[in-house]
Amino acid sequence: MIAKSMQGLVNNNSVIRQMFEEGQKMAAEYGAENVYDFSLGNPNVPAPKKVEETIEKLLKEEDPLVLHGYMSNAGFPDVRKKVADSLNKRFGTSFTAENIMMTVGAAGGLNCALKALIDPGDEVMTFAPFFLEYRNYTANYGGVLIMSEPDTATFQPDLEDFRAKLTPKTKAVIINNPNNPTGVIYSEETIKNIAGILEEKQKEYGHPIFIISDEPYRELVYTDAKVPYITKYYRNTIVGYSFSKTLSLPGERIGYLVVPSEAEGFDELFSALTIANRVLGFVNAPSLAQKVVAECLEEKADIAYYAKNRDVLYDALQKYGFSCIKPEGAFYMFIKSPVPDEKEFVAKAKEYRILLVPGSSFMCAGFVRLAYCVSYETCVNSLKGFESLAKDYGLI
Amino acid sequence: MIAKSMQGLVNNNSVIRQMFEEGQKMAAEYGAENVYDFSLGNPNVPAPKKVEETIEKLLKEEDPLVLHGYMSNAGFPDVRKKVADSLNKRFGTSFTAENIMMTVGAAGGLNCALKALIDPGDEVMTFAPFFLEYRNYTANYGGVLIMSEPDTATFQPDLEDFRAKLTPKTKAVIINNPNNPTGVIYSEETIKNIAGILEEKQKEYGHPIFIISDEPYRELVYTDAKVPYITKYYRNTIVGYSFSKTLSLPGERIGYLVVPSEAEGFDELFSALTIANRVLGFVNAPSLAQKVVAECLEEKADIAYYAKNRDVLYDALQKYGFSCIKPEGAFYMFIKSPVPDEKEFVAKAKEYRILLVPGSSFMCAGFVRLAYCVSYETCVNSLKGFESLAKDYGLI
Repeated sequence: MIAKSMQGLVNNNSVIRQMFEEGQKMAAEYGAENVYDFSLGNPNVPAPKKVEETIEKLLKEEDPLVLHGYMSNAGFPDVRKKVADSLNKRFGTSFTAENIMMTVGAAGGLNCALKALIDPGDEVMTFAPFFLEYRNYTANYGGVLIMSEPDTATFQPDLEDFRAKLTPKTKAVIINNPNNPTGVIYSEETIKNIAGILEEKQKEYGHPIFIISDEPYRELVYTDAKVPYITKYYRNTIVGYSFSKTLSLPGERIGYLVVPSEAEGFDELFSALTIANRVLGFVNAPSLAQKVVAECLEEKADIAYYAKNRDVLYDALQKYGFSCIKPEGAFYMFIKSPVPDEKEFVAKAKEYRILLVPGSSFMCAGFVRLAYCVSYETCVNSLKGFESLAKDYGLI
Repeated sequence: MIAKSMQGLVNNNSVIRQMFEEGQKMAAEYGAENVYDFSLGNPNVPAPKKVEETIEKLLKEEDPLVLHGYMSNAGFPDVRKKVADSLNKRFGTSFTAENIMMTVGAAGGLNCALKALIDPGDEVMTFAPFFLEYRNYTANYGGVLIMSEPDTATFQPDLEDFRAKLTPKTKAVIINNPNNPTGVIYSEETIKNIAGILEEKQKEYGHPIFIISDEPYRELVYTDAKVPYITKYYRNTIVGYSFSKTLSLPGERIGYLVVPSEAEGFDELFSALTIANRVLGFVNAPSLAQKVVAECLEEKADIAYYAKNRDVLYDALQKYGFSCIKPEGAFYMFIKSPVPDEKEFVAKAKEYRILLVPGSSFMCAGFVRLAYCVSYETCVNSLKGFESLAKDYGLI
């Protein structure tokens, strides 16, 4: 009855979302404080105070017909300019409003980018482990997602595997930095190497290969590591950003795309992106949210909160004998499963009311993802369960 | 460089949107008060006071982690229940939260419906004149939009033409009631007749044919005419609604889909719709806007305002010798062009700084659309231009 293209999706509904729904049910049954739900990247730090203040100010001062009205599909010109100015200040770039399209979150932006670039049969590359929606987003436009195998020692891309898997059909490469699910930051060297390989392959194939850089976690960094601003290293780039994590506004669906003027066929590409925004049914990023984020570009949710969670969990998991790379960014840890089938480990963890996501949901079996964007109490109270798990598996 | 599927769209960017951008430029050049921009359906009546009050109340009372946070892809359960209750009260239906999916406007909802139903090569029917985006929305999923020719005397559907154009490939029929661009309301008789034909054809073809009813103008009715609630006449129906017009919130991208439980394969279909919401990158309808509309379901923007515009324009246009059906709903008039090529008329009107949209943009050449969701002053001050146009064409 439904479309054939949807039948697989209906039968395999997102494991992450299913766990979210399951977590809600468990919370209702056992009490929220007794469920350690590390399954979803739903920020647990409230939006900065300035978000609320800005909404109140806008309600008082802005014409409601503007505040809640249509604008050009790319967004309010003043908002786009403020975003460009803020990027220039922070990253030494030279964008104008013309380089920015406001989007319905990063997911909306990525869909516009893929709609603009991909024809049926085209290939899009990405690096495992990765957010599995990239496959669905690519399939929306008839594209095929090809994945480069992970280097599970470092979770930096395996560049030789990457190079070997590029083909004349490759139209785009999706990177995600800082990375979900590993918490790893791709270094400047990694970015330069990826750019170098793509420059070479663009010449060989005679057409551009775009990097689509998905950067919702850009501001969530716990060390001195810098997240390179990719347009400075490679001109054929579309950067996707979201305020979901930085400002704790995931439900509001607000983000933007950046396309540098140096990108090949810039005018046509930007036009295609704004038309994609329209015809895919987004039309424009939510208007009030656009005006709000434009006033909050220097704001961040309280990152120290996540840092504290990271530390308490990482230290305890190390102590209990679990193996995992200490994350530098985002709010995820990617833990090696003590048994080869990580789904068994996930099921066992659920017995202690600990909800984790199997790595196979990120095309990297043998690991599990823990999202530590939860309360500190949840982290601390979960430790007893993790200790028991470690004992069950003979780690301690 | 961009996708082949986008090249046509980039070359033929939406005439309506182009006029919007052009209107903004003309306003900057001549002053907004000297441009009579009837091109876009952008409400000119501010949102009801209760919208602002509700936002302020929510900021004070609701947990910001809920207010701006993720929820199930179908929307907040409490919001969905309130929408269902309100529909039941007004239309005598018996929906629950399970029948409602909150969407990123009606455009987002329609895209989810088509993604859920359409495979490449499937046909979607609609009635000319129609909002041309239906063609793009259908093409997003590889579908082909087939149009039933208009009865230009009444702008009710030509049911014989409709019946003749249904084929075994027809998976859905989009209707838009009250209608953009004609302002006509499809009567109960029309709806019953459409339903009857589809019941017959479903049996003949052995598969369901869904009606997708696009109803953003449902509350904008200026006469005693009733807009039939279509799920009461035909079970395989998806209703798309938007608060853009009723609450004057077009920029906020908030609406919903309704699927009655009696629809064939309801569970699978509803699941496909929520997955479509996710994978197309909407993820969920904006969270604050969901909570706002749930408190404003009994509210309406000031419709008397549009009624006054309708009357002053319709009476004057009649007097000047223009021909048009008096609209019963929405905020559009569909005027017969005094010359066969309505684009010539549109160009001529622009000389008087009157912006209209050619009927060919709705697949109905020879007519022009006038959107009277503008200020009363704009309507009154445009009359001199219309009078001059009437003289230019020898109508008076």
